[in-house]
Amino acid sequence: MAHDEFSLIRQWTSRSNGQEGDGLTVGIGDDAAVFSPTPEMEVVACCDAMVETVHFLRETMKPADIGYKAVISNISDIAAMGGIARYALVSIAVSPSYTDEEYRQIYDGIYEACEQYGVRVIGGDTVSSPRSLHLSVTVLGEVEAGRAIRRSQARPGQLVFVTGHVGSSAAGLHLLLAKNEPEAKWLPLVEAHQRPAAQIQAGRLLQASGVCGALNDVSDGLASELWEIAEASDVTIRIAAESIPIREEVLAYARVSRKEPLDWALYGGEDYQLVGTVSEDGLAALSQQFAEKGIPFTVIGRVEGNGKNVLVTRDGQQMTLNKAGFNHFVHVEEKKG
Amino acid sequence: MAHDEFSLIRQWTSRSNGQEGDGLTVGIGDDAAVFSPTPEMEVVACCDAMVETVHFLRETMKPADIGYKAVISNISDIAAMGGIARYALVSIAVSPSYTDEEYRQIYDGIYEACEQYGVRVIGGDTVSSPRSLHLSVTVLGEVEAGRAIRRSQARPGQLVFVTGHVGSSAAGLHLLLAKNEPEAKWLPLVEAHQRPAAQIQAGRLLQASGVCGALNDVSDGLASELWEIAEASDVTIRIAAESIPIREEVLAYARVSRKEPLDWALYGGEDYQLVGTVSEDGLAALSQQFAEKGIPFTVIGRVEGNGKNVLVTRDGQQMTLNKAGFNHFVHVEEKKG
Repeated sequence: MAHDEFSLIRQWTSRSNGQEGDGLTVGIGDDAAVFSPTPEMEVVACCDAMVETVHFLRETMKPADIGYKAVISNISDIAAMGGIARYALVSIAVSPSYTDEEYRQIYDGIYEACEQYGVRVIGGDTVSSPRSLHLSVTVLGEVEAGRAIRRSQARPGQLVFVTGHVGSSAAGLHLLLAKNEPEAKWLPLVEAHQRPAAQIQAGRLLQASGVCGALNDVSDGLASELWEIAEASDVTIRIAAESIPIREEVLAYARVSRKEPLDWALYGGEDYQLVGTVSEDGLAALSQQFAEKGIPFTVIGRVEGNGKNVLVTRDGQQMTLNKAGFNHFVHVEEKKG
Repeated sequence: MAHDEFSLIRQWTSRSNGQEGDGLTVGIGDDAAVFSPTPEMEVVACCDAMVETVHFLRETMKPADIGYKAVISNISDIAAMGGIARYALVSIAVSPSYTDEEYRQIYDGIYEACEQYGVRVIGGDTVSSPRSLHLSVTVLGEVEAGRAIRRSQARPGQLVFVTGHVGSSAAGLHLLLAKNEPEAKWLPLVEAHQRPAAQIQAGRLLQASGVCGALNDVSDGLASELWEIAEASDVTIRIAAESIPIREEVLAYARVSRKEPLDWALYGGEDYQLVGTVSEDGLAALSQQFAEKGIPFTVIGRVEGNGKNVLVTRDGQQMTLNKAGFNHFVHVEEKKG
């Protein structure tokens, strides 16, 4: 990529929403950014990368979607600590496979996500890549000191919940890969894949409630996230397959495409919902708060005891949930039978 | 890359020096890391990426050097704000071109740099890359509130200085690309390229002195950095080519290889020294402090007035310094003559 194209990208970066003021002492344009942390808060920091052909294809993600999702996946990690997202650093490796106009659109997506969640772009790096586009985003946020929600704090007796619906992103990806022009009724699934939402508001309710045990975001699929909580907390979790909240459109599209929707919910990932545990006596008040905010909140199981295990029941049968990956629940059941 | 190879890399990451305690509330292994900022300090954040074939070749950088330098280039940005580096997030995109053992060595380099500068690895991401190795590192540090040194604060009358020596990294790179087995006497140049030092100590002296105007680190060459200061501060800088501190080995290797050492010093970059401005009445005390610490500190010019310009004098001739890139000083002079 020619030097003047780098200048172009720097221009898009420096249309920055990271103007100084309100805690930001030095924004984009110096060796490093400088900000004042809010008193009584701790800093929350995470970093997620997205690579062309590995995490997305040109066919499944428009340039603006790529930028948008790279930011959202990080904001989601802040949500999973119960925090507020505040700042982003964007490292982009630009490949010849995208045009200048497409890079502008990628930045449109980055800034759109940042503006929706009140995040300022305060820095980053622009380099070239010989083949694939790489986006690596760091998001910095904050949470009340000593009050971050960790995945290691699930305790026996707590209930297991998930926010929103799961499996929608995987269904949307299946639809995009099938390369049919999606019918209008499936568009919500495509949007769930390309324009996911981060659950900052849900995370803040959980943080403030004081009754949330462990918390994870559903980036790698419900199964993988439940296993992470079980292992980090040294507990056995049991969930009921029938309780898992799956959108009507996902069930309908699964019927049409002869797929098992539960596979998408358990192993698909990228829903960016929150999954966690909550003490039973805190449930009623918390459910009420979620209902008031219009955020679906579903109890899907219980922490049963110690021992690093995740069990799932379905149609009266019980099995250990596969840890991760696209191992098909249905096939495993068939082998069992 | 197979799933179990990812696990391996995660293992190397989680040998983490990011154990909790001393301000770190949540280290590696959760959705995000959490730390308590030091009271009265602001947070300094920067991000730098390195890409195989773009920023380095397998022939010029051993795996451990790659990891080491990716961290140092970021710590150097913290130094250029007058700050202390504290935490790092490492995003790696692993390509099939390196072996498991080589990835282990890359992490050896990462941790070696972090340990030397008291930096903890608190997070990151491991993804795969279809071809080139990508390393994107974010470093978080801190600086006394309101006391970060910015590149926009050069003022007429101030002197222009540089720490250490410049041009060594470029000379080392030239030597490595020439693919001769380097003689022992040139090894310091190779080391300057592969194992540069970040000038945190110098940055802290400058920060504490209260007499430093603008500051940059020499990552893109002295010319580019001086221009950044001149443009950000709206000043005219004049430097004397003869004053630029160049190591004896660089001069000797330049003679042998029939190159112009000043080109390396002005346009080579990656020396990670600090260049900045200081008020004249603060110079004596500051020079004394640098001498006591054994850090070379050289005055190379002066801020002459306003107007976004960088002039260089050599052999009594004056010219505008090329802004950046490998435009050869000597050739320009010849054209002038």
